[in-house]
Amino acid sequence: MTVKVGVVGAGMIGADHVRRLTSVVNGAEVTAVTDIDTDRAAEVAASAGARVAPSGREVIGAADVDAVLVASWGPAHAESVLAAIDAGTPVFCEKPLATTIEDCVRIVDAETRHGRRLVQVGFMRRYDAGYRAMRRAVAAGEIGTPLMAHCAHRNPTVPESYHSEMATHDTAIHEIDAVRWLLDDEIASARVLRPRRTTRRFDHLQDPQVMLFEMLSGARVDVEVFVNCQYGYDIRCEVVGETGTVQLADPEQPLVRSQGRAHTLVPQHWKDRFGAAYDLEIQEWVDSVAAGRAAGPSAWDGYAAAMIGDATVRALHSGDLVGAGVGDRPDLYERAADET
Amino acid sequence: MTVKVGVVGAGMIGADHVRRLTSVVNGAEVTAVTDIDTDRAAEVAASAGARVAPSGREVIGAADVDAVLVASWGPAHAESVLAAIDAGTPVFCEKPLATTIEDCVRIVDAETRHGRRLVQVGFMRRYDAGYRAMRRAVAAGEIGTPLMAHCAHRNPTVPESYHSEMATHDTAIHEIDAVRWLLDDEIASARVLRPRRTTRRFDHLQDPQVMLFEMLSGARVDVEVFVNCQYGYDIRCEVVGETGTVQLADPEQPLVRSQGRAHTLVPQHWKDRFGAAYDLEIQEWVDSVAAGRAAGPSAWDGYAAAMIGDATVRALHSGDLVGAGVGDRPDLYERAADET
Amino acid sequence: MTVKVGVVGAGMIGADHVRRLTSVVNGAEVTAVTDIDTDRAAEVAASAGARVAPSGREVIGAADVDAVLVASWGPAHAESVLAAIDAGTPVFCEKPLATTIEDCVRIVDAETRHGRRLVQVGFMRRYDAGYRAMRRAVAAGEIGTPLMAHCAHRNPTVPESYHSEMATHDTAIHEIDAVRWLLDDEIASARVLRPRRTTRRFDHLQDPQVMLFEMLSGARVDVEVFVNCQYGYDIRCEVVGETGTVQLADPEQPLVRSQGRAHTLVPQHWKDRFGAAYDLEIQEWVDSVAAGRAAGPSAWDGYAAAMIGDATVRALHSGDLVGAGVGDRPDLYERAADET
Amino acid sequence: MTVKVGVVGAGMIGADHVRRLTSVVNGAEVTAVTDIDTDRAAEVAASAGARVAPSGREVIGAADVDAVLVASWGPAHAESVLAAIDAGTPVFCEKPLATTIEDCVRIVDAETRHGRRLVQVGFMRRYDAGYRAMRRAVAAGEIGTPLMAHCAHRNPTVPESYHSEMATHDTAIHEIDAVRWLLDDEIASARVLRPRRTTRRFDHLQDPQVMLFEMLSGARVDVEVFVNCQYGYDIRCEVVGETGTVQLADPEQPLVRSQGRAHTLVPQHWKDRFGAAYDLEIQEWVDSVAAGRAAGPSAWDGYAAAMIGDATVRALHSGDLVGAGVGDRPDLYERAADET
Repeated sequence: MTVKVGVVGAGMIGADHVRRLTSVVNGAEVTAVTDIDTDRAAEVAASAGARVAPSGREVIGAADVDAVLVASWGPAHAESVLAAIDAGTPVFCEKPLATTIEDCVRIVDAETRHGRRLVQVGFMRRYDAGYRAMRRAVAAGEIGTPLMAHCAHRNPTVPESYHSEMATHDTAIHEIDAVRWLLDDEIASARVLRPRRTTRRFDHLQDPQVMLFEMLSGARVDVEVFVNCQYGYDIRCEVVGETGTVQLADPEQPLVRSQGRAHTLVPQHWKDRFGAAYDLEIQEWVDSVAAGRAAGPSAWDGYAAAMIGDATVRALHSGDLVGAGVGDRPDLYERAADET
Repeated sequence: MTVKVGVVGAGMIGADHVRRLTSVVNGAEVTAVTDIDTDRAAEVAASAGARVAPSGREVIGAADVDAVLVASWGPAHAESVLAAIDAGTPVFCEKPLATTIEDCVRIVDAETRHGRRLVQVGFMRRYDAGYRAMRRAVAAGEIGTPLMAHCAHRNPTVPESYHSEMATHDTAIHEIDAVRWLLDDEIASARVLRPRRTTRRFDHLQDPQVMLFEMLSGARVDVEVFVNCQYGYDIRCEVVGETGTVQLADPEQPLVRSQGRAHTLVPQHWKDRFGAAYDLEIQEWVDSVAAGRAAGPSAWDGYAAAMIGDATVRALHSGDLVGAGVGDRPDLYERAADET
Repeated sequence: MTVKVGVVGAGMIGADHVRRLTSVVNGAEVTAVTDIDTDRAAEVAASAGARVAPSGREVIGAADVDAVLVASWGPAHAESVLAAIDAGTPVFCEKPLATTIEDCVRIVDAETRHGRRLVQVGFMRRYDAGYRAMRRAVAAGEIGTPLMAHCAHRNPTVPESYHSEMATHDTAIHEIDAVRWLLDDEIASARVLRPRRTTRRFDHLQDPQVMLFEMLSGARVDVEVFVNCQYGYDIRCEVVGETGTVQLADPEQPLVRSQGRAHTLVPQHWKDRFGAAYDLEIQEWVDSVAAGRAAGPSAWDGYAAAMIGDATVRALHSGDLVGAGVGDRPDLYERAADET
Repeated sequence: MTVKVGVVGAGMIGADHVRRLTSVVNGAEVTAVTDIDTDRAAEVAASAGARVAPSGREVIGAADVDAVLVASWGPAHAESVLAAIDAGTPVFCEKPLATTIEDCVRIVDAETRHGRRLVQVGFMRRYDAGYRAMRRAVAAGEIGTPLMAHCAHRNPTVPESYHSEMATHDTAIHEIDAVRWLLDDEIASARVLRPRRTTRRFDHLQDPQVMLFEMLSGARVDVEVFVNCQYGYDIRCEVVGETGTVQLADPEQPLVRSQGRAHTLVPQHWKDRFGAAYDLEIQEWVDSVAAGRAAGPSAWDGYAAAMIGDATVRALHSGDLVGAGVGDRPDLYERAADET
């Protein structure tokens, strides 16, 4: 079976997913593309041999669309996702699930009413081989009960449009999801430290930031976010348990010895670091649609990330400890032990 | 365009390629399968929704077959490859290209007469991300002119049917191709050392072996083959140049600290170590067929490996230095500098 | 010149220093030993061919004593150090310099009045090759201005007598000194997080703890203290600057591949990890005494560590941010740029 | 007890040992120094507060000399060592023990007649922490019976006076001793490969060289010697056994991430790489003299290295396999299992 995918949003990330569905992933074809920029939509649709649709309305629920991929701008996500749930159509939604808590709640409620999962949210760390091996080690009890995690998310630079709240919503959001998943635990509260700023920053930007999370279990997580670290795109993570620790591997790179140094290259872009994870994410989504089941990060995970993100931003501004208040996970979102 | 692939040989490796073409690779479908074991062929064909063909004759050149994948047993390779060339059909042939030098020569001659490349041989190391990064470093001059390479190929164990010549033909064959490609050079001669044998061997087996190759350029290569090393499947490679060295990365694995040790896991099977390389190999082959060009390891590379393999086996038995005598590469097989 | 050393305190650490002065270090001899346990003093003195003194009074300022090493229990340190300053005798004092802030201030005042440095405090991290290489990298500008440091101090286990305040005074005290020295900066305030406790703890013990320090420059430091981590004695440190990071090396250990794993051993005891640093610390102290100058961690460093330690303990109990209030460094303690 | 050392030869290495005995090592003093260059002898003696002796005759056996350190040029070693044995005086002789096989035999015979060991030869690898940890792993059976070893000895550059035979006598001599000791085995034969030469060589120099040794047990050892590798002083060693491998650690260096790379420094000089090993070598020698016993590499090890070195040089020139012919080790030189 070939899964026919309708794509809502043909910007950079949408176009990249269309390319992935068309020329990387097995078992899918793009049948319809829409974007508020119709020229753009036409161009991307042409690259995939798909039709152009005037709006999401003509994509979601259409006869030639088995599943929907939402990659429009954030504020438009909720409308498409809700329409997909309404149509009973599986939907992959790029992060964020929605830009307001209210919309996230609305989606979770709609899907819960629907009675089975349709939504997968684009937290692609769960598809990275390194993170998966870490999670296997934690789940296998190799380090005992997790007590702490130390993370860092470093980018070489960001454009001037990047502001301090984006350190949470665009950057640490990946760590927020990853530690929830690695520790199989929920974030209860956040505090944000403001270290000395890099002078290579823009004046409006607090960079770096250190985010401190307490999990429901009492485990503690610290996340360094440093988006102008200059030297590369570097993701670090260590989980410390009662009997041991497990540490994310650096990307596999040959060791070169020359000019008095032994060195490996540090990736410069998230596409280099997580390209394979994006591919696998979409492949597994397509496979799950074909198999008639939903897997991966859920609407609940998208909602929780939104709640925690909001708390983190409030913590950044106030300097105080801020509760995340995620609440109880509906039964629909109970995760099998071996699941992504 | 979907490439319609006919598969000749549905044993373990053939069936694995059918699975890969059907559920991993983009842009291909399996349309016909044949095997001398017709039940086996039927089973594998069914898994892919393909027809069963009574013999290669009904696969190669058939209207529903754009390209052929040959994964029968070695002695049958040549017949299928020659038939494909005769039909002007692109063909992927698992290693070895053929089991006799004569057949290799016949294939190279036929393809040369045909005038453009149709054959790709299954040397999948060239598709491993680690090897590719090494080759980029060498080609970029990061280590200067290559002077030496040190390699090791270790398997945890082999079955009793494995004999001393297989250390060359089944095992070191990968290193033979890899060093030719990494150094962009040809192997001129071979010598084989017989170290103290592991007592965990079968009596008939010389294990480990140390193979010494001299390249046309004068560069020297040593390859340790140790197929009962017990601890894992471990592939090591370092190229030493005039100004530096480059070393193959170990597979990306999280570092676990527990019980007094900091450890990473060593893969236990070539499928774990090179699974992604196999996937990429077939994807790139399918892409090249769709694009109407040939790339990757050529019939010439298959012929050269056969010549060098024979010399290596003679060197094992005689204890002497044995010339490989590969000869001049026809123009058809000149490689673009940036090619796999 | 052989430096004649009088030793005050012949417990475990004192006896170890006597052994070090007698059979490892160059240019020293132990001439007098005292301890409140006179049998113990006699035994240790005999091992070094030294006389037994009834009290510190008969050691400090004696004709056969060029320099004093204080390794008595903490509350007795101040009296000996003050007596040494009074006598104009160089003195090495094991950490802590004193157990009250008042005594630390008294020592700093006495030394300042004396007009030149006599006191070295036993912060041996500054003599570890790995830390020194880190400091060289920071001082050479290889990572730019330091903005953050991430540290961990892990012990396999501690005895039942170890209590929560010791996580600061006995354990993190090393990190407190190390980050002041690595960053050439002062700690301004402390906060302590209480992660989920290990169930392998004693009930009275908060283990692990996460200590958060803000430096005067605004740089932020986090220190994980986990003294029942089970797997080994593991010290980790990374300094993050505006343009790069530098990370403490793990101890040099051969890589063993066996039984499906590639592993190195983790030290189990601080003596294994820092033995060479202790030797070098005492060697450099002896050399500096012979050369008539003082170097290494000063009384001011001992005072600062005490102030910061007290603030950290208050932060542990209160859960609040607590200022360290170290104050201005007297000119006597200005450090040359290239100094330990 | 302070060991009074007479030093024969005050060139670069002799002067360095005088410095080491005077200001690093515990329990020794230099009492007499001689050199054919009397000005040089006077200068070095003055630095240690020692007397100048007109010749070795006035050093060896003198009343103020408990032990002799021989660091004259190679051809003069034998005379001093034989004189020391004759005088019943412990003697440390820098490598080589002697420059002819005949002299080596003479020394072994003299010491054997004397009936107990007096001679230690300066193979300092046995005092390097990394090699010791490797040997412990091998001796503890962690890798099973050794079957192979892969070594490399790389220097950044050598002066024009360095010629092809020195690759054995000055460079690989360390690996020759190290593998005998690591594997507790003897070298039976040698073959030397001549890879493509570096163009950064002098015309008279075969660089690199690959030396192939067969041990009495049948284990095989390959040693890459590359003394103009440009990038640093790099020593590599892996021993492969029946069940695992052990690999020499790289020197402990902090990992710096900057400018797109994660790098450690490679030492540029053997003094940086093995400084601590030299210190420990002389310390343990002094300790053994004080304890009235001999330990460390013996005259037999010096003789064996000479035999193997000669075979290796003949192998270089002839291109053939050359037997080393070391012969049976006299009982005097039986090594305790736990010995250096």
